[in-house]
Amino acid sequence: MNEFQLDQYLKQCQQQVNQRLEYWLQQQNGLAPRLVEAMRYATFNGGKRVRPVLAYAAAQAVDGETTLADDVAAALEMVHSYSLVHDDLPAMDDDDLRRGKPTCHIAFDEATAILAGDALQCLAFEVLTRSPVSMTDRTRLRLIQLLATNSGTQGMAGGQALDLAAEGQQLTLQQLETIHHHKTGCLIRASVAMGALTRPEVNEDQLQALDHYAQAIGLAFQVQDDILDVIGETEQLGKQQGADLALAKATYPGLLGLEQAQQLARELSEKAITALQNFGPSATPLRELARYIVSRSH
Amino acid sequence: MNEFQLDQYLKQCQQQVNQRLEYWLQQQNGLAPRLVEAMRYATFNGGKRVRPVLAYAAAQAVDGETTLADDVAAALEMVHSYSLVHDDLPAMDDDDLRRGKPTCHIAFDEATAILAGDALQCLAFEVLTRSPVSMTDRTRLRLIQLLATNSGTQGMAGGQALDLAAEGQQLTLQQLETIHHHKTGCLIRASVAMGALTRPEVNEDQLQALDHYAQAIGLAFQVQDDILDVIGETEQLGKQQGADLALAKATYPGLLGLEQAQQLARELSEKAITALQNFGPSATPLRELARYIVSRSH
Repeated sequence: MNEFQLDQYLKQCQQQVNQRLEYWLQQQNGLAPRLVEAMRYATFNGGKRVRPVLAYAAAQAVDGETTLADDVAAALEMVHSYSLVHDDLPAMDDDDLRRGKPTCHIAFDEATAILAGDALQCLAFEVLTRSPVSMTDRTRLRLIQLLATNSGTQGMAGGQALDLAAEGQQLTLQQLETIHHHKTGCLIRASVAMGALTRPEVNEDQLQALDHYAQAIGLAFQVQDDILDVIGETEQLGKQQGADLALAKATYPGLLGLEQAQQLARELSEKAITALQNFGPSATPLRELARYIVSRSH
Repeated sequence: MNEFQLDQYLKQCQQQVNQRLEYWLQQQNGLAPRLVEAMRYATFNGGKRVRPVLAYAAAQAVDGETTLADDVAAALEMVHSYSLVHDDLPAMDDDDLRRGKPTCHIAFDEATAILAGDALQCLAFEVLTRSPVSMTDRTRLRLIQLLATNSGTQGMAGGQALDLAAEGQQLTLQQLETIHHHKTGCLIRASVAMGALTRPEVNEDQLQALDHYAQAIGLAFQVQDDILDVIGETEQLGKQQGADLALAKATYPGLLGLEQAQQLARELSEKAITALQNFGPSATPLRELARYIVSRSH
């Protein structure tokens, strides 16, 4: 890891994006304080800020600076937070807890949670138009388009619809990948691309390399999540990981076996790092993140 | 009405925006067809297309042309449609029917309705970035900002939150106006402003006059809706309109009496028309719309 401390880097990114989220949410106060309170509750939910961290690290990879990525990071986290609030609703995944805390519709009420999600999505786009960061109008529009395309029917929302439709179905590996690619992968790709686009120096070759990186880690992230689920279940239930258990819901360990899935995660992580070969030390955070994603234990 | 036929004008605007909505929705197909089907169902719900008509008429008021307003009209209707889908959900107004047809969550399911609303909001912003209509980047950003500001916490979503909080409460006239101003008025103001902004010739004086017009008709629209509710209830229940009935929910006839409310609606309509005094015959559609809003019977 040389001089680079990933823990410190993550902490610094989290602090930076939290400040911006606080700034934008404060500006929303006045008319409907309870709605804004629900938005804040949904946004400050103890999340790891993976998408903001990727945006910062991608900006840094281009020319060593991160500050311009602040509002892009905030907008990405608002979209991610809105999607969690809506996913947790009784009609969707019906989750009462997230990271050990009551979900938004439990802490407030369903109507407020629906509206808070709606307003967070809206705020994300507003932030990109209002951000005081110096950017050309063309860049701003490109950022807005990237966020919209990757969170709508061809991205996150489409993936969530596929996931709902797949419930109880036996999926192929390809179908599983299609779901994950859209449900989580698209916003991760948007995070890397949007972070890099905040740097005026970025060129299309760099953007393409970063997109290869983002595709690989997006999938690696999901494979590792599935692996941790299986390991977690095994520990929790006190029994061996078995194909029957894993097959109940389509997962990478269920379709490939645990060892093969772990191998896939490692390969994806290496593929992501290889995509960055033309970047210098400024891409260290991105590289370390690719290693972290497949080595994390929670 | 001179040569101008409002019926024909409304029909033409409706056809025009429907074509654009169809165009954009078709482009969403491929990944999650059922989600897009729900979005289409929610968008083609027999609505009067009030916001698109206002956008077209405002564009025409500036210089006699409407075609540039097509995608702005479509984006506005997407936001309006998403808000209806979410408002109808069991956790919100719990409506099974809208214009005599099953609401989106009845025709599909709640999860799909939530996602369809989310994806429609997202698509509205995407449309403004992708619209092939010739506009400067600066204009596009201004349109996106107007749409976001007027549909978020300081606009439509904030108004809806206030409306939910007001349930069962006795409101003052001022509180009632604050709710309507945000819940419906903000998107109507955005419709007029966004339509006008598609014309490169528009100046700030014109925008200000049009905003005065939009504020007046936004309120007039709501007052007339309340009046029609009272008249409808009276006819339906076969008894006289009475203060007790009207007071159960805060309405203009309930707070002012029916005659005073009708007087207010007429005054607001005239105020809207007066705001257009510096516009020539190109503003005829806007003027006729102001008359229509307070004379309609449904």
